Amino acid sequence: MNINHLIENNKNRYLEELMDLLRIPSVSADPAYQPAMRKCAEWVQKSLLSAGVDSAEVIETDGHPVVYAEKHIGSQYPTVLVYGHYDVQPPDPLELWDSPPFEPVIKSGNIYARGAADDKGQFYMHIKAFELLAEQQALPVNIKFMIEGEEEVGSANLRSFLLQHQSRLAADVILVSDTSMVGLDTPSIETGLRGLAYLEVTATGPNRDLHSGVYGGAVANPINALCAMIASLHDESGRINIPGFYDEVVELSQDERTAMAKRPFDLAAYQSALGVDAVAGESGYSTIERTGIRPTLDVNGIWGGYTGEGAKTVLPSKAHAKLSMRLVPNQSSENIAALFTAHFRAIAPPGIRIDVRPHHGGEPVVTPTDMPAYRAATLAIEQTFGKSPVPTRGGGSIPIIALFEEILGLKTVLMGFGLDSDAIHSPNEHFGIENFLKGIETIAHFHQQFAVLAEHK
Amino acid sequence: MNINHLIENNKNRYLEELMDLLRIPSVSADPAYQPAMRKCAEWVQKSLLSAGVDSAEVIETDGHPVVYAEKHIGSQYPTVLVYGHYDVQPPDPLELWDSPPFEPVIKSGNIYARGAADDKGQFYMHIKAFELLAEQQALPVNIKFMIEGEEEVGSANLRSFLLQHQSRLAADVILVSDTSMVGLDTPSIETGLRGLAYLEVTATGPNRDLHSGVYGGAVANPINALCAMIASLHDESGRINIPGFYDEVVELSQDERTAMAKRPFDLAAYQSALGVDAVAGESGYSTIERTGIRPTLDVNGIWGGYTGEGAKTVLPSKAHAKLSMRLVPNQSSENIAALFTAHFRAIAPPGIRIDVRPHHGGEPVVTPTDMPAYRAATLAIEQTFGKSPVPTRGGGSIPIIALFEEILGLKTVLMGFGLDSDAIHSPNEHFGIENFLKGIETIAHFHQQFAVLAEHK
Repeated sequence: MNINHLIENNKNRYLEELMDLLRIPSVSADPAYQPAMRKCAEWVQKSLLSAGVDSAEVIETDGHPVVYAEKHIGSQYPTVLVYGHYDVQPPDPLELWDSPPFEPVIKSGNIYARGAADDKGQFYMHIKAFELLAEQQALPVNIKFMIEGEEEVGSANLRSFLLQHQSRLAADVILVSDTSMVGLDTPSIETGLRGLAYLEVTATGPNRDLHSGVYGGAVANPINALCAMIASLHDESGRINIPGFYDEVVELSQDERTAMAKRPFDLAAYQSALGVDAVAGESGYSTIERTGIRPTLDVNGIWGGYTGEGAKTVLPSKAHAKLSMRLVPNQSSENIAALFTAHFRAIAPPGIRIDVRPHHGGEPVVTPTDMPAYRAATLAIEQTFGKSPVPTRGGGSIPIIALFEEILGLKTVLMGFGLDSDAIHSPNEHFGIENFLKGIETIAHFHQQFAVLAEHK
Repeated sequence: MNINHLIENNKNRYLEELMDLLRIPSVSADPAYQPAMRKCAEWVQKSLLSAGVDSAEVIETDGHPVVYAEKHIGSQYPTVLVYGHYDVQPPDPLELWDSPPFEPVIKSGNIYARGAADDKGQFYMHIKAFELLAEQQALPVNIKFMIEGEEEVGSANLRSFLLQHQSRLAADVILVSDTSMVGLDTPSIETGLRGLAYLEVTATGPNRDLHSGVYGGAVANPINALCAMIASLHDESGRINIPGFYDEVVELSQDERTAMAKRPFDLAAYQSALGVDAVAGESGYSTIERTGIRPTLDVNGIWGGYTGEGAKTVLPSKAHAKLSMRLVPNQSSENIAALFTAHFRAIAPPGIRIDVRPHHGGEPVVTPTDMPAYRAATLAIEQTFGKSPVPTRGGGSIPIIALFEEILGLKTVLMGFGLDSDAIHSPNEHFGIENFLKGIETIAHFHQQFAVLAEHK
């Protein structure tokens, strides 16, 4: 069976189907998209059934539903649980998109649409790889699909879902394509992900908006105060200035850092792709380390006072910010959120009241490289790309990975085929067609390799 | 003629007319209100004509028109030029108003509406005081009215208007009611106003919104950077941290400060009215000094990144802020704007580009207390309130006052009847009915007193 050849023959159909999926505006963060979320879940269910699974269901949760499907070929065969998510990030700012986010277009070898890479384009590779093997009567493993709808809002209901369906989710490994590789010429596998603590703060000064002339200089301005408080969260060296923040951080050994540094990285290309004349961050660490093995704190949004046309001389009553911290082993999302909250309240200046509201969080993970599934992924990538993958640490967060291990006792392989330049969470998100097709091929190889290696357990 | 009695007989009509004026949403900052601005100018023109002026015109400018009217009784009589503005501040945040901003209501002795005190309620007192004297054939001075429509957006076109109409604007003094007094039991006259420099800044980091996990910690975040830059504009003592900012500031003598301190001020009442547990500001100065004789810097608005529902893990491309500085003698608005711009660009961290766009500005003023018009105002206030007014320094800015002196060579009397608690520029702006009626009475007295004193020049 020539997988490559079969993919080539079906590629136009694969792309058309993916574009159908991308046309559904499944934004989980915004209640206005509720009907689209439902429609998307049902679309995924149908696509799994037509790909040849034994059964596929849309399973309700307290939030958006999970699509679950399985194909059983025999209990003597190993079982792969595929995880993905059909929800996407909000598309705004809309005015920065070159084409509408939910009207996918193909340009210079990429599909442009919200969700193209994160994660519709990537979980759909798994459905097509499965379909291909099933059609050829060549499926060598049992497969289970769990495609959720709340990854972009913190998978709040997945814990209870895992607890409730623990037995039917039994598997030998979890395979996830929701990350990126260094490049088509430098295949890689992510061996770690950062955790997340996300909070929203409100600074309140006077009980009403004031005239900045009549009161300015005598009454604490909540915007100025919030800016000063946020500024104080980093020191001159770029370290985060919250007592206890680094207490649990696992420092990598010099050998580990040297190994990481071997990963090809072109700083000049990185800067010019982002349009910045310099990178920034914690001193003493490289860009790869800053995004891979070090925790961070970013303001994701800020608003307060008059933001309309022209000028208004107001001293506002309130100012707001959304902040998130990326966490590394062994930081705990809950603990860091508590440290932040206590510290941020403590540094409020006279005349300012602070409210802190937690959003979602997630734990950092490191995935093992000494298990059969990781070796299977390595061999599959070598078959497709002719090169051995380099292990990398991803800067993003998939809170669910830590949950899998905690509740299902399962390890995960993060075999992603996106690129950092795919602009996920940004305007003009896109996914390379070659990445998509090579991903399907690699996933098919993975199942074959894993069937062999897992048997030797 | 018993002015008091005449006002009592007409007060219901006065209030109904003022409420008509307040129903016109004349917001100068927002182009959407353009038709309302026009309608308001024509309403003012009509009200002047029916009050008895010889002529009233709506005079075009490059922006919103100026309403100009005059009543000439004889060149042997002194001439008073009344200045006011018919434009108002934007009403947002709308949700904080107890009643719609352009549907005036009378509650517990106040008229609630945007513009009630700033400045419709106050310039309308002048029209009614004039009407009253004219009806009684008792007008003792020539009167000119110049009611503009761009005070809340910086009077950008008034300089050219003054230059163009210099001769017809000839007068002995300018009388303005666009400020506040300490209280009905403590009448006061403002003898100084702060200047203003208002700018908008944009911090740009990467060329697109980024995923805060993939890039967070390695790429400068424009919100964090803007916050740090804004925080650095004040030092620990609350002084403004811009090189050269204080170079031209006139420090008051200890005697002057002692005199200012005599003005009654209840800090506890001030704090509880604003709902703050502490005041704040430049150390070494009282609250009255902080708002009267010291320059300040306030952020009037800030925005950037994701500000919608829920959580979005974005590292935004841009962050924005509107900032304004209140200036004191002898700071120059243009010079301070230039110092700010140079400094703010200079402190941009690596990876962040800064754009600074100036909005409107205005020069600080001190009005003389040793001229006939000021004595006339003092006597008029004594007649109405039975108390001599205390001189105060206002924290607000009326850029036009400095222009009057520069171009027309005229001094101004700032005889305002508002209260600091009127919530101008805030939700639920209001104006005391007693202030309104006493203002009309005082203005009528002023003309009579000035007619006598000005003759003795």
